[in-house]
Amino acid sequence: MRWWLAFVLIAVAALTSAVAYMAPASGQADGEAAPIYGVKIPPGYRDWQLISVNHLAGGKVKQVRAQLGNDLAIKAFREGKLPFPDGAIIAALHWNEVSSGENNKILAIGFPGAGLQSFVAGSAVNVQFMVKDSKKYAATGGWGFADFTNGKPGDEALHKTCFACHEPAKDRDFVFTRYAR
Amino acid sequence: MRWWLAFVLIAVAALTSAVAYMAPASGQADGEAAPIYGVKIPPGYRDWQLISVNHLAGGKVKQVRAQLGNDLAIKAFREGKLPFPDGAIIAALHWNEVSSGENNKILAIGFPGAGLQSFVAGSAVNVQFMVKDSKKYAATGGWGFADFTNGKPGDEALHKTCFACHEPAKDRDFVFTRYAR
Repeated sequence: MRWWLAFVLIAVAALTSAVAYMAPASGQADGEAAPIYGVKIPPGYRDWQLISVNHLAGGKVKQVRAQLGNDLAIKAFREGKLPFPDGAIIAALHWNEVSSGENNKILAIGFPGAGLQSFVAGSAVNVQFMVKDSKKYAATGGWGFADFTNGKPGDEALHKTCFACHEPAKDRDFVFTRYAR
Repeated sequence: MRWWLAFVLIAVAALTSAVAYMAPASGQADGEAAPIYGVKIPPGYRDWQLISVNHLAGGKVKQVRAQLGNDLAIKAFREGKLPFPDGAIIAALHWNEVSSGENNKILAIGFPGAGLQSFVAGSAVNVQFMVKDSKKYAATGGWGFADFTNGKPGDEALHKTCFACHEPAKDRDFVFTRYAR
């Protein structure tokens, strides 16, 4: 590749990233900040790349979950680099799972006798964020935490539980999720 | 926004998309094509945006799953526009789920007595693609199908089952997954 073409491409990529960062994300209000950490819902987080998926079960709780990362977080996950760099943000999206009758009907035809059951994402439960800023959040492992339900942050008591819960994952920079390959 | 700035931004976005399309994705070989439809693994699919997540259970089968879409597919999902435009590609990533002992330990402390169990993505099972080309794949609803395990396409018998299975979803352009909000 010619040097000037590489230069143009790098400039274009940088400019577009800057523009993407500045652009308001569709449907995401730049609303209320979560207590303690002052974290707001990051614009465009729903469009971030996938870290992994999981599901949670127990009593009445049945959730399907996805973890997304901004570019800095995804790069660090892929390269296995710890600690995460300042500016990395991880989003955890939690949905109530619902049994999919339409999927199950198809599965019963495609795989007769297998008894396959499909559970898909229903209504949103909450969205959580971890924002890396090693100076601002030095007292909590360099991470600011936030939990939103229907766009509204949870209360201070809830946010006091975040770091305590993540502390056991100290050797992975307080992050539980691993990148799914 | 000034008209010339809007023009520059559109030009930049178009150029960057073209570059992103041309760039080889890290770790994705442009390998063997799947039988019948001739679909290869699309470069960079792991970086596509999230459509939804789900999990599948039945007998020995326990999987966590994510559906990702390229830009055309995601746009159509968001806008609820059917049929999907030519060029839209949907990727279905399937992993064996594994019970996460480390997550469960933390959950037991954070939510004592709730009996919460976390199931995360383990080894990859397979990756499936649906590629929209209304002319090329006119006989199968405009979709080409492909199923890869460890980067290798499944055989012809397997690929013969794809459209038959998707046919009941005709009123949603043969796509089961719904966009998770």
